[in-house]
Amino acid sequence: MTELSWVDYLKRRTGKSPDVLTGIGDDCAWVRLGREKFLLKSDLFIEDVHFKLKNTSFEVIGQRAVARVLSDFAACGGWPKFIGISLGLPGHLNKKNLKLILSGVLKLAKQYKFSLVGGDTSKSSRLFLDVWGLGTVDKFIARDKAKTGDYIFVTGQLGNKPFNQPFRPRLEEAKILAKNFKLTSMIDISDGFIIDLCRILALSRKGACVAFADVPVTGGRKDLYRGEDYELIFTVSPSDKKLTFLKKKFYCVGRIMPESFGCKIKKGNKLSKIALKGYQHF
Amino acid sequence: MTELSWVDYLKRRTGKSPDVLTGIGDDCAWVRLGREKFLLKSDLFIEDVHFKLKNTSFEVIGQRAVARVLSDFAACGGWPKFIGISLGLPGHLNKKNLKLILSGVLKLAKQYKFSLVGGDTSKSSRLFLDVWGLGTVDKFIARDKAKTGDYIFVTGQLGNKPFNQPFRPRLEEAKILAKNFKLTSMIDISDGFIIDLCRILALSRKGACVAFADVPVTGGRKDLYRGEDYELIFTVSPSDKKLTFLKKKFYCVGRIMPESFGCKIKKGNKLSKIALKGYQHF
Repeated sequence: MTELSWVDYLKRRTGKSPDVLTGIGDDCAWVRLGREKFLLKSDLFIEDVHFKLKNTSFEVIGQRAVARVLSDFAACGGWPKFIGISLGLPGHLNKKNLKLILSGVLKLAKQYKFSLVGGDTSKSSRLFLDVWGLGTVDKFIARDKAKTGDYIFVTGQLGNKPFNQPFRPRLEEAKILAKNFKLTSMIDISDGFIIDLCRILALSRKGACVAFADVPVTGGRKDLYRGEDYELIFTVSPSDKKLTFLKKKFYCVGRIMPESFGCKIKKGNKLSKIALKGYQHF
Repeated sequence: MTELSWVDYLKRRTGKSPDVLTGIGDDCAWVRLGREKFLLKSDLFIEDVHFKLKNTSFEVIGQRAVARVLSDFAACGGWPKFIGISLGLPGHLNKKNLKLILSGVLKLAKQYKFSLVGGDTSKSSRLFLDVWGLGTVDKFIARDKAKTGDYIFVTGQLGNKPFNQPFRPRLEEAKILAKNFKLTSMIDISDGFIIDLCRILALSRKGACVAFADVPVTGGRKDLYRGEDYELIFTVSPSDKKLTFLKKKFYCVGRIMPESFGCKIKKGNKLSKIALKGYQHF
């Protein structure tokens, strides 16, 4: 089964509630409780799937596990408020290892001013962290509202972030972008520029034309499928009067096109079509 | 490391925030966001730790994983509102298995009127579910407010619930209890009557005297350490004028005593002391 078919199935089966403003399928759920609206999110970080114990420090494991969720809040224009962690712990871990994981988490808590409110711990054959949390948001930026003609941006250089080092979630940038510009959609690059752009396109029922030369990739081979970058892709209405400013500050990499156009990459004068159906299997 | 020493360490390290009314160490966290107060909770359900694939149906796995969290909301006097699930999926599971897990979850969603709002899925060597959620609560019942002289109750028979069958979380009972009686503390029995009672005692800095004959256990051997019962233990102030009614409806099993008394079980005329330090190791 592919991710897309499972998400579609989930959406059909779970139905609609007036208190669920955006449910399954976006970076976060956007919900209402009484007079407050906020974001909910969880994200798994599993040994031998998302990290290797042999080349990642425990502190970085705690840091990355939480930063991935913060990046999802950022992708909706939000900010973390309460975070919880469910920990699966193999028998070989000791108290010192656990304290290091926690210290990676608490550095972020201090930096972004959220509270660690709880979680669960259990024995497990492999180490894993499920980080869940609640975020606040003034203006929710979805994945499914990109319009034909919108400009496509990324917030920073891709391809230069080691998988076993801390990264900085783009919370501040996202907050400024959501507040001051005519953003129509946003997503964080966790699975690769192409896959995550295609998520916006599929949900918005749109196509795109991307200039290969304009996508900012550092390092050796220019790989638009490399994941774990945690920069943001966002689309901006052409009616935004501060487009020139945005183009200076960030990287404009293409335009949103009608769905029938598909998703195409322009290299020199050649357009090549990207076929991505259903994203990754799991 | 023991659970208790880890929870103490976590409490010290995470510090206090005015928006976290009850943090790490209770059945749920109780938090404030703007004008709303609510519960947050997560709970792990892991293959070969909490269930065996060979004797548990996929639907029951979905049901029990979520019902455990609902039971925690019940233990605080709350009700589930939004639920999310992070799923670790081994390669041998197929679409049909996944749909059955979901159907176990959605039965509860329909029954208790909460919304499934999202989660995450990932490859994993063993099947696990981390269920997290938000619950509403009118009057939060903590673990740490039992007073000397309070009566100790359990909501129902212990020892008769198979580990591989669905169970009914005591949401309705808890709601009625929290609303209409002078409850001082409450907890759900996930790890056994004695262990969970001792959690209330340790956090309230109190002792207890329990009449062995009055603890309602069905089945063969009377085992007060058997877990996974999901009845509730609650304590009631002796000033509650409806104590007689409570004693008819539920099971009164003892009294709260000063801390110096310790936790003692009365069998006939003999009092035996329970020594439980730090609960389970993990």
